[in-house]
Amino acid sequence: MAAVRTYVHPETEDISLPRVLFALSEPLRLEMVRKLAEEGEVDSIELGPDLPRSTLTHHTSLLRESGVAFVRAEGRKCMISLRAEDLEARFPGLVGTILAGYGRARAGERHEGRHAESADPETGR
Amino acid sequence: MAAVRTYVHPETEDISLPRVLFALSEPLRLEMVRKLAEEGEVDSIELGPDLPRSTLTHHTSLLRESGVAFVRAEGRKCMISLRAEDLEARFPGLVGTILAGYGRARAGERHEGRHAESADPETGR
Repeated sequence: MAAVRTYVHPETEDISLPRVLFALSEPLRLEMVRKLAEEGEVDSIELGPDLPRSTLTHHTSLLRESGVAFVRAEGRKCMISLRAEDLEARFPGLVGTILAGYGRARAGERHEGRHAESADPETGR
Repeated sequence: MAAVRTYVHPETEDISLPRVLFALSEPLRLEMVRKLAEEGEVDSIELGPDLPRSTLTHHTSLLRESGVAFVRAEGRKCMISLRAEDLEARFPGLVGTILAGYGRARAGERHEGRHAESADPETGR
């Protein structure tokens, strides 16, 4: 029987705010977390199919070690998911607020070059 | 007349989420931002009276360049404040949520070693 790979994760109460913020301070990792929030558990390879394997592992390890993501082996695959409930318990609203800000920033980039001359007629904002 | 020192700041719409998160991912800077949120504009020296001047300048410059803080010269002093409204406009709720999480983490550290055996009788949580 082959040994099962195991991954070390911090306990929820040991998740550190500066480390979570650092994990989310890198555009590639921020995009990974957005994807995990949207899609649930995925094969980690899907988070960076075009990345060198060592780069992908660097980022997924950092997400795991900071308490942002949960990683488990499934055969030869490495499945990864967002620790959404643990993060919510530890820092209520944090990940949602950050991902909302990220969504706004991405939407702004998509519209870059177009000036917003009027407020949204639907919401008046 | 002496030249007035001026400081470069990003425009509100150019404030980048990863850079803000990076600025807040360092415990010393997180504490500086907490202080600024609480006290308003202060002489930057008050953010780190015991720090080497170069260390203090490194951190205040990073807060300014990331769009988190506004810095202005006043005589020989360097006054610093949180860009609370700009940050709120760009990333609604972000700084408040992070500082709330920071407050919770700090409170947890103060009570470290004491086990929370019962829920809060007021809220049942």
